[in-house]
Amino acid sequence: MLGVCYYPEHWNEEWWPEDARQMREIGIRYVRIGEFAWSRMEPEQGRYDWDWLDRAIEILAAEGLKIVLGTPTAAAPKWLVDLYPDVLPVGEDGKARLFGSRRHYTPASEQWLSETRRIVEVVAARYGRHPAVVGWQIDNEFGGDDTVLSYGPEDAAGFRNWLSQRYQSPQRLNEDWGNVFWSMEVNSFDEVIPPVGAVSETNPAARLDFWRYASDSLAEYCALQAAIIRKHSPDRFITHNFMGFFHNFDHFKLAESLDFCSWDSYPLGKVEHFPLPEAERVRWYNTSHPDFSAFHHDLYRGIRNDRFWIMEQQPGPVNWAHWNPAPANGMVRLWTWEAFAHGAEVVSYFRWRQLPYAQEQMHAGLQRPDRQPSPGGLEVAQVAREIEVMGDLPPVERAEVAIVLDYEASWITRIQPQGDDFNYKLLLHAWYEAARRLGVDVDVVAPGQSLAGYKLVLVPCLPIIDDRSLAAFKATTAHIIFGPRTGSKTTSHAVPWELPPGALQSLVSVKVSEVSSLRPGVSLSLTGSKASGVATHWAERLETDLPADLTYEDGSAAMVTQRNCSYLGAWIDGDFLRQIFADYLKAEGVAMIELPDHIRLRKRGALTFAFNYGPMPWTVPFGGILFQIGNEVVGPHDFACWVDG
Amino acid sequence: MLGVCYYPEHWNEEWWPEDARQMREIGIRYVRIGEFAWSRMEPEQGRYDWDWLDRAIEILAAEGLKIVLGTPTAAAPKWLVDLYPDVLPVGEDGKARLFGSRRHYTPASEQWLSETRRIVEVVAARYGRHPAVVGWQIDNEFGGDDTVLSYGPEDAAGFRNWLSQRYQSPQRLNEDWGNVFWSMEVNSFDEVIPPVGAVSETNPAARLDFWRYASDSLAEYCALQAAIIRKHSPDRFITHNFMGFFHNFDHFKLAESLDFCSWDSYPLGKVEHFPLPEAERVRWYNTSHPDFSAFHHDLYRGIRNDRFWIMEQQPGPVNWAHWNPAPANGMVRLWTWEAFAHGAEVVSYFRWRQLPYAQEQMHAGLQRPDRQPSPGGLEVAQVAREIEVMGDLPPVERAEVAIVLDYEASWITRIQPQGDDFNYKLLLHAWYEAARRLGVDVDVVAPGQSLAGYKLVLVPCLPIIDDRSLAAFKATTAHIIFGPRTGSKTTSHAVPWELPPGALQSLVSVKVSEVSSLRPGVSLSLTGSKASGVATHWAERLETDLPADLTYEDGSAAMVTQRNCSYLGAWIDGDFLRQIFADYLKAEGVAMIELPDHIRLRKRGALTFAFNYGPMPWTVPFGGILFQIGNEVVGPHDFACWVDG
Amino acid sequence: MLGVCYYPEHWNEEWWPEDARQMREIGIRYVRIGEFAWSRMEPEQGRYDWDWLDRAIEILAAEGLKIVLGTPTAAAPKWLVDLYPDVLPVGEDGKARLFGSRRHYTPASEQWLSETRRIVEVVAARYGRHPAVVGWQIDNEFGGDDTVLSYGPEDAAGFRNWLSQRYQSPQRLNEDWGNVFWSMEVNSFDEVIPPVGAVSETNPAARLDFWRYASDSLAEYCALQAAIIRKHSPDRFITHNFMGFFHNFDHFKLAESLDFCSWDSYPLGKVEHFPLPEAERVRWYNTSHPDFSAFHHDLYRGIRNDRFWIMEQQPGPVNWAHWNPAPANGMVRLWTWEAFAHGAEVVSYFRWRQLPYAQEQMHAGLQRPDRQPSPGGLEVAQVAREIEVMGDLPPVERAEVAIVLDYEASWITRIQPQGDDFNYKLLLHAWYEAARRLGVDVDVVAPGQSLAGYKLVLVPCLPIIDDRSLAAFKATTAHIIFGPRTGSKTTSHAVPWELPPGALQSLVSVKVSEVSSLRPGVSLSLTGSKASGVATHWAERLETDLPADLTYEDGSAAMVTQRNCSYLGAWIDGDFLRQIFADYLKAEGVAMIELPDHIRLRKRGALTFAFNYGPMPWTVPFGGILFQIGNEVVGPHDFACWVDG
Repeated sequence: MLGVCYYPEHWNEEWWPEDARQMREIGIRYVRIGEFAWSRMEPEQGRYDWDWLDRAIEILAAEGLKIVLGTPTAAAPKWLVDLYPDVLPVGEDGKARLFGSRRHYTPASEQWLSETRRIVEVVAARYGRHPAVVGWQIDNEFGGDDTVLSYGPEDAAGFRNWLSQRYQSPQRLNEDWGNVFWSMEVNSFDEVIPPVGAVSETNPAARLDFWRYASDSLAEYCALQAAIIRKHSPDRFITHNFMGFFHNFDHFKLAESLDFCSWDSYPLGKVEHFPLPEAERVRWYNTSHPDFSAFHHDLYRGIRNDRFWIMEQQPGPVNWAHWNPAPANGMVRLWTWEAFAHGAEVVSYFRWRQLPYAQEQMHAGLQRPDRQPSPGGLEVAQVAREIEVMGDLPPVERAEVAIVLDYEASWITRIQPQGDDFNYKLLLHAWYEAARRLGVDVDVVAPGQSLAGYKLVLVPCLPIIDDRSLAAFKATTAHIIFGPRTGSKTTSHAVPWELPPGALQSLVSVKVSEVSSLRPGVSLSLTGSKASGVATHWAERLETDLPADLTYEDGSAAMVTQRNCSYLGAWIDGDFLRQIFADYLKAEGVAMIELPDHIRLRKRGALTFAFNYGPMPWTVPFGGILFQIGNEVVGPHDFACWVDG
Repeated sequence: MLGVCYYPEHWNEEWWPEDARQMREIGIRYVRIGEFAWSRMEPEQGRYDWDWLDRAIEILAAEGLKIVLGTPTAAAPKWLVDLYPDVLPVGEDGKARLFGSRRHYTPASEQWLSETRRIVEVVAARYGRHPAVVGWQIDNEFGGDDTVLSYGPEDAAGFRNWLSQRYQSPQRLNEDWGNVFWSMEVNSFDEVIPPVGAVSETNPAARLDFWRYASDSLAEYCALQAAIIRKHSPDRFITHNFMGFFHNFDHFKLAESLDFCSWDSYPLGKVEHFPLPEAERVRWYNTSHPDFSAFHHDLYRGIRNDRFWIMEQQPGPVNWAHWNPAPANGMVRLWTWEAFAHGAEVVSYFRWRQLPYAQEQMHAGLQRPDRQPSPGGLEVAQVAREIEVMGDLPPVERAEVAIVLDYEASWITRIQPQGDDFNYKLLLHAWYEAARRLGVDVDVVAPGQSLAGYKLVLVPCLPIIDDRSLAAFKATTAHIIFGPRTGSKTTSHAVPWELPPGALQSLVSVKVSEVSSLRPGVSLSLTGSKASGVATHWAERLETDLPADLTYEDGSAAMVTQRNCSYLGAWIDGDFLRQIFADYLKAEGVAMIELPDHIRLRKRGALTFAFNYGPMPWTVPFGGILFQIGNEVVGPHDFACWVDG
Repeated sequence: MLGVCYYPEHWNEEWWPEDARQMREIGIRYVRIGEFAWSRMEPEQGRYDWDWLDRAIEILAAEGLKIVLGTPTAAAPKWLVDLYPDVLPVGEDGKARLFGSRRHYTPASEQWLSETRRIVEVVAARYGRHPAVVGWQIDNEFGGDDTVLSYGPEDAAGFRNWLSQRYQSPQRLNEDWGNVFWSMEVNSFDEVIPPVGAVSETNPAARLDFWRYASDSLAEYCALQAAIIRKHSPDRFITHNFMGFFHNFDHFKLAESLDFCSWDSYPLGKVEHFPLPEAERVRWYNTSHPDFSAFHHDLYRGIRNDRFWIMEQQPGPVNWAHWNPAPANGMVRLWTWEAFAHGAEVVSYFRWRQLPYAQEQMHAGLQRPDRQPSPGGLEVAQVAREIEVMGDLPPVERAEVAIVLDYEASWITRIQPQGDDFNYKLLLHAWYEAARRLGVDVDVVAPGQSLAGYKLVLVPCLPIIDDRSLAAFKATTAHIIFGPRTGSKTTSHAVPWELPPGALQSLVSVKVSEVSSLRPGVSLSLTGSKASGVATHWAERLETDLPADLTYEDGSAAMVTQRNCSYLGAWIDGDFLRQIFADYLKAEGVAMIELPDHIRLRKRGALTFAFNYGPMPWTVPFGGILFQIGNEVVGPHDFACWVDG
């Protein structure tokens, strides 16, 4: 199903009926509204204006459109900030981050929580049972614009409170953080300050806890809104629109108060933001990398109940990346179908029409400012027709390969990279890509989630292995490959006394006796009976009695296997990983095919989709199949869909 | 005529007479003094000391030197800042920018305006009618050291006041800025704050207006000083010394209170500051780029009455660029004659003698600290002798080619580059250079200025097309070429409802339906019947019924022409532009010649000058000419001047 | 002798006896303790706890270990900072630099001085006469984490006081600083503020004096502690552990209150921090550059009495560089012996055991967290056995070559680089390396130190030549080569009236008439009868009647010699320098040999050491020698030691 983000408050009210009619006509079924309209809902303190929103909802509903209503907390009006300046977040420099854009609040502010309760209550009470309102989006893109960490007095107080609950006594805090080092001990929780602005590096344990506290308080903030909505709006779903490649809070935790996850898919902008090599950025500049969207579909599908939406889908050039090209012809259609292939229920485009004003005036919509369809808008109409033809899609099945994503891994490797280019996103991407280049489907799972039924489990980097994770690893019969730095930290960000991989040593009998981060230009040869290549970025010296799968030049082990568990103590690239994964997939009897770098496959029930991100046609190498869309030659930026004949 | 900047307060008074004598002897006629001497004019609050300045002026006058007196407002003394700390400008971080260099004031400060009125009044009253004083320089290098934008309380108040006059009501402001977006609406002008320090990007409309306000208040500040001087100093000229490649305020507006413009020409420093590719920086490291000075001569000549001065001419190595080489032998002479060729009345060197103290101790003068002539000083003496020989130069005539420079274009493309390397200066430079490589003279004109009489008008980028500009475009018979992003904004920095190029559509029937900024490494082929090449940086998708002059690979138009107007929706490089310009110049019957990249020509009346910026000789390819200076072989870093025989 | 840094407070007390026993067993003789233990010595204001430290000392002493006790001022506890927040240093942005790491004090704080006196007094009084305590380390790594310059109110007051003593009157200050420039004159010392936060560049003379003031106040602070210790702890040595490549205060001055210098040798981290080209960083990534440690040995040996220690020697990977590889096998041993070859009395490793907590949890020790020896620990045990075999080493003799290091040169070239890449450390390194590649020993000496007995003296850059320096240059019969910018400044950072090289003109009759800094990519050919090459970075135009040793392309001089003094006015690279040095060494009859870039020699009395920093073996090219360690084929990362047979 298709949806769209719409801002009736942006447009002349006379246009609304025609907009609604056109939406319906091109195949739109869902409309998200309201999430930035606080200044229109409540133009002055306590003076509400619902008339316009009532009318907008009626007009949309009259066309049969289903409405997702957003809570407007991502953009408090100026009068509120002037009344309560303490709601503003505070930067690392100790200065308030001012009004003028969005997300100008810290959830640590008591006043802000009170304002949130008030506005969510009135919106939910007014529209919660409206028949056209089918669901809710809480806030907008939590954490966007680097707003997870805030350093003001209320944040500090919240942190101290969080610590006192976690550690109970300052003695315990001192011990777990190792505060005896550099005389950092405190005599009371009141002495603790956020780990920022110090003469040099602060304690990584403090930073990890500060991040956890901030992540937790965002999750609580989301739950606070969800509870109010559930009270007033029974039988409607609650979701939030997450951002891709965004690790600054724990999505698994925050999602606990949601019914399902949505995410905002901007494939081209990420080409600039993700740390790709420059040549790759040029290569994929107007298509995006073929694993960027797919990875996030696989992530958000798995978090809650195998349901997910694209709440905002890029329909054309945007405004916020370093460069903002138009998507290649066909890519808006391709991205949409790719989302469906990975299980999306709804793909909702951002936005109906390009607003010629303000910060996003250069961000395309399905319509141009002159109310004509944009190139992306024309592709969407085509998608809608194809959906009609295809009918309901079969349910998504569990994949045979799982990859573990851990938000704390992301925090830990940024708090203590140890080598400047140890980038968790890059590592995760390389492992995911290596598997996907073998034509297999992949589920993204949380640490501790059941791994039953998988054939191969990939754990690129999981520094903290808690009891639940360990139990899940022990319980599965899948082959598990653990990457570098897995098991390298205790829950309080210390090196395990028994050395890394810590608790994992009960599965693989190995100790990491020394660690080297490797600067650009340095690589170490690795050889093995089944695969060979080089280590870059990171290389661990392993102490083990196990036979080595891969060895360094001096003959010492870089990778070892015990029963169904392998530990790989080096950063290796995608081609090298692919050799290794292929070997295990073959052993586990998983069907696979080596794909060109621009082709990806994805199954949904009996359907197989093939997506071509490249500029050259690709011929489907399978026989005896029945095409539902496309044919055996998949053109550039095109896709095909078939069932086995 | 030659001039020099002199600081009697820097030197032992016993040296003054000898300095004055030597100036006269080597051919200096004008001396600029006084613009940094406030602490000597008024050592303590209200205690003035004019004796030393009286004597200095008498000594200079006694040698027949004409004096340009500077108002000392660019460097207020410490006692003043201590008394009135609110005069200090405030940075983006909200902190006052402190005493210790220069330009430490914001013109928004009421106290500063009062101090300015006081000191200018007393200086002007004392010296305004002195027979040796022939003119005034107001302040020094307005905007230098990034002082146009200031963010303190008085700046904010000034901005609010400016807005209330422009928009009359907060409703109108909200509408024109599109403040409904992200709930940015205000209920009163009092709610407005400068667009800085926000969580993320602020409204570009707010930023453009803040820049306009700051530019306007600088222009008012200049006019305030000018009015005081005119009262006390009749029949003296008033000028200001602008900086090259400096776009942070509107020079056209500020110049309205001046009699003519001066500018400070530092050709070598700009090689490092201008965004040239590294290879070009190496190429021109000790000569400067052959279009850098010429462009500014053509700009400042045109602003007021076809008169301009070089107030500060680089005479040797300076101290403030990333690297500071000595000019190649001959370049000080070449730069001087090039200024005259472009119409300069006076070339005044900075400075008489290198001061061995303080910030500019490594900045050369015509003399070294040991009172011996510097290498540059020796070249100046040669120039003076050549001036004697040449006598009066003929008046400068209007060129056949004009290029439109717009300060708001510079602000808009920095506020919203949309692609990180969309640099207005680079674009302007490429268009100017392309024309100049064809041997033609170019006038730099303001938007809205009459274009009558030109054969070719170049508009590299003019986002806002107001009524005056449009009228000027309509009124000329010249062929006009509009570059990318022209007409892409309304006066309030919105996308025109009818799409770009907005009002220009009445001249060229085309709509920009989609825009791509192109990252480094991406280029798109463009082909046409008369020229071919690639687009980089920027490519617009054009919707038009006009035949295409240039097309993208998919056959869509990149450039179209209607009657005498062409719209080029892509960023193309200099060689490609030159092909296009040559075609139109030929059609218009303008004489041209393709020049090597290091040679430039310039006419002044019947005289033609050829300047050789390269290391190899160049043979003049014209016959039947009579050399006034030089001969048909123009040596490296040399020039020649001839009349048609 | 070997030592180790130990933190009993980090470990379970039950481990102490075993730790002490193991130390003794592997050959450790000295243990440094206590320098970060303030929060354990004084857990709350005025409540001291010495029991644990008493016991630790007894346990170490019982194994015959000699103790170096550190004063704990590098890490004040939180309660102290909460009581006296004014002790915190203040950054360039005017904000206090907070608690959370170390070095969070400014020595300008009166309260801090009072707290320092108190804690040092009690520690020194308690342990000063303990028989096992043989020496003291004051504080830890002065200046680390950029803590030399602080900008708070007490720093400003201290600066004003320092200035009033130096200049006596504001008039004198104005004159010496050239404050008339830009009206920077002050009427009283009270008007002076630290040179920071101004609109643009502040007066370099003010910055130099501010740096001197800060350096002096650190030296005074060290002397304050030393005086207290001497009172309570007779016959014990006092040292401080300096950092390599750290120029932010004057080590010569600070060392005046010490008995000898120690330094902290982290060869690998410096590969990333020193401005080496990237290819060199890759080349030396796990060995370090062969001149990095050697230079510092030669420096710290010379400062006080030809004695020095390595207080902290890197034993494995560290945590604080951009990348942190493990040292190549053998390098920990090589570095240790290299230190001894250069005269170190004691090499003390940092640290006994890797603490799995806090900021340095990834920093290796001789033991791993699991109490097993690390790879570095195993090499140290080998070194200890070799020391036994070798017995006492002969005394170090004066070298035949000296190189002058000047801390003010470092400050001046950073305050006023004039070309962005004029890096004093790079220049010094190139000159030292060029000499060392010729197989000769080098002493690093302070300006003004006697140069008697040397054959060749290298002065890469000495901007200020004071009377003592000049006298030392005049008194020596060595050939002296002065590099660019030598003599280019007066003591108050002005250009000498007689032009550079100022006072040096009495030795070499030459004037620097013009200076060019040269951007990357620009090089100027230099030719001479004995050596040829190119100038990069910097080229001076020389005015002289002396014959030229090297000339630019235009025939002007780049290097001249008068009697035993040469002035070289250009930056030239190591290979070029080596040709020149070789020529003078040959003339002076100094034995030399051209070494590969990875081999270095060092004599200690009759012993010659050869160190191989490269991956290929090297065959000793001398005959008739008797190997003490190793043999004629020196393996990769190995060394040999011989006496002439």
